[in-house]
Amino acid sequence: MPEPLSVLPPGSTIGILGGGQLGRMLALAAAKLGLNVHIYTDQRDPPAAQVAVATTRGAYDDLVALERFAAEVDVITYEFENVPVAAARHLEQLKPVRPRPQALAVAQDRLAEKTFMRDNQIPITRFAAVDDQSTLEDATQETGLPAILKTRFLGYDGKGQVRLKNAADLTGATDQIGRQPAVLEAMVPFTREISIIAVRGRCATSGTVESKFYDCPENTHHDGILRRSVIPSAISAADVDQARAIAARILDRLDYIGVLAVEFFHIEPATPCSGPKSLPRLLVNEIAPRVHNSGHWTMDACTIDQFENHIRAVAGWPLGTTRRHSDVEMINLIGAEAEDWQRLVAADDTLSLHLYGKGEARPGRKMGHINALKPRMDDC
Amino acid sequence: MPEPLSVLPPGSTIGILGGGQLGRMLALAAAKLGLNVHIYTDQRDPPAAQVAVATTRGAYDDLVALERFAAEVDVITYEFENVPVAAARHLEQLKPVRPRPQALAVAQDRLAEKTFMRDNQIPITRFAAVDDQSTLEDATQETGLPAILKTRFLGYDGKGQVRLKNAADLTGATDQIGRQPAVLEAMVPFTREISIIAVRGRCATSGTVESKFYDCPENTHHDGILRRSVIPSAISAADVDQARAIAARILDRLDYIGVLAVEFFHIEPATPCSGPKSLPRLLVNEIAPRVHNSGHWTMDACTIDQFENHIRAVAGWPLGTTRRHSDVEMINLIGAEAEDWQRLVAADDTLSLHLYGKGEARPGRKMGHINALKPRMDDC
Repeated sequence: MPEPLSVLPPGSTIGILGGGQLGRMLALAAAKLGLNVHIYTDQRDPPAAQVAVATTRGAYDDLVALERFAAEVDVITYEFENVPVAAARHLEQLKPVRPRPQALAVAQDRLAEKTFMRDNQIPITRFAAVDDQSTLEDATQETGLPAILKTRFLGYDGKGQVRLKNAADLTGATDQIGRQPAVLEAMVPFTREISIIAVRGRCATSGTVESKFYDCPENTHHDGILRRSVIPSAISAADVDQARAIAARILDRLDYIGVLAVEFFHIEPATPCSGPKSLPRLLVNEIAPRVHNSGHWTMDACTIDQFENHIRAVAGWPLGTTRRHSDVEMINLIGAEAEDWQRLVAADDTLSLHLYGKGEARPGRKMGHINALKPRMDDC
Repeated sequence: MPEPLSVLPPGSTIGILGGGQLGRMLALAAAKLGLNVHIYTDQRDPPAAQVAVATTRGAYDDLVALERFAAEVDVITYEFENVPVAAARHLEQLKPVRPRPQALAVAQDRLAEKTFMRDNQIPITRFAAVDDQSTLEDATQETGLPAILKTRFLGYDGKGQVRLKNAADLTGATDQIGRQPAVLEAMVPFTREISIIAVRGRCATSGTVESKFYDCPENTHHDGILRRSVIPSAISAADVDQARAIAARILDRLDYIGVLAVEFFHIEPATPCSGPKSLPRLLVNEIAPRVHNSGHWTMDACTIDQFENHIRAVAGWPLGTTRRHSDVEMINLIGAEAEDWQRLVAADDTLSLHLYGKGEARPGRKMGHINALKPRMDDC
């Protein structure tokens, strides 16, 4: 096991597992601080490679390539939660891996994630494991109906899910998700979806651990893909405090270093609701052990954005402020929507456009995003 | 001569002559917009190469290397004003060069620059050409004393200048600046130095020409090197308007595309002044046909910074807003000052640190800068 992370001076190299747009934006944030980035990816033409000092292309089970990569970097992080845990654990023997691979293990298995939350007294919806069709009916005893059946692994952007409204929907439900190990979750009668972007660092010089939290965006999804984040959200200050407290507990229990995103269902007390009356107002939906799409607004509305704070944490630097100087709405550009960039920037010169350098605008592919800023309404 | 510039779609490549920190920050801005950057430089280890898609190393008189570079890019710009005009003119036969090489010719020769200003009724201090020691005394008839003798070419950051307080200082003065062609300028009894960062674009789709202007910083120099820019400056709204009008005239007369910096001497009427009483309040000191150190504050205090607006202009895109959302102070980190980065970010988490990826912190070398933001005082 390598030595505890010392503070990485400018000129050091951060290795990033994954070369997508999140890796690209991390690389740009690292460059701002005079730090280099080396990308490891199994993809062709990774968007992050265009702005990285070096790129290694290799499979996540190619130990030779992983070891060569580790030899060339000072610390390792990742930009997607489906990095094989075995790869991260192997790398951890060679160089510090931040966040710890344990965070991957929790986040990439819905059953482990829900169990972790329950074991740590973090409010979540009722759930039950579903190994196959025969255990599905038992699971509904725990969750009730309606419920959502989700694969345990590799679920993101709404893939691998099926809604079960009533008993008739149970027939063939596990076939619909490819007969994979699954979790059944009670449907939450939520008013809105919010998230929080949190960051935890351990300053390498002082040893001090600190956590910081950005404001909570309200998020809108279509077809399971994030479309829009609005900041500030309509939730109360007490609920924001609650979101922060939950995120803080998750960070601490995972001894986490870096940016973590927590997605919540928010339930207004006034909402007519067929569920139990004792539901708390915020339920954790899922966590992502990485920078997150619902934090892209920080790039233009905060002095220090989620990408820079992740890099600072991973490099053992003091964290930057999470203060927001502007109100903001983030709009994702999905697939062919990105082709509209020219009309958008011509129509409104205040829009901040971010494009990810991806060649082909396939349906559902995240091509870029726009941040629309307004002065803070609560500033005066 | 190539076709007029069409709008460059994401994925296009912008060629940049020069690979210093300005090229690096231009490359980061291009990456935000999904545009690639190819650097041309005669330097080893250029800071911009770390974040560029490609780098060509070659001399500025190496026509083969220049032509190879031109073949691989869609448009060409530059990040320093001492790009040999012959190189820019040669490239212009192959690909659009923005801003036009004419801007280089004006900016890199102090005599051409001052003559351009005078011919365009732009207020400047009195000046006279000095070819050698024998013409120096005549020149003082035009300027009076005290005056400053400056080399016509390759002067920046206070190099190649000598102050002449009285007649005795004339002896050997041309030796002190290496007997180069020079200009003698009347000393200006200025109250402060300000600058303006302006940008002019011609939208390739609509053909519309537009110019935009950032707020004026007040700049402090030590040993001829910029140390600090404070925004807003203490000058009046009328003087800001005057600075904009002057910058607009320069942009139009040069049919300029991209970011231009204009540095001014600002003279308060109340200042005791031995010079002529009819002096205007703003005199142009010099121009830089490029993004500029006194515009680095825009990176954190504006939604769209000078680097992005230069890239937008060069790519034929609509310009972004130059609105400032925060008050800000920019502090350069010169030489060994950059080694203080860790203490600085630990002491104040609101500071935005920018480091340029330069290895050696030589005295006088610009290693990075810090932007310190505050809410706008005039917002409420």
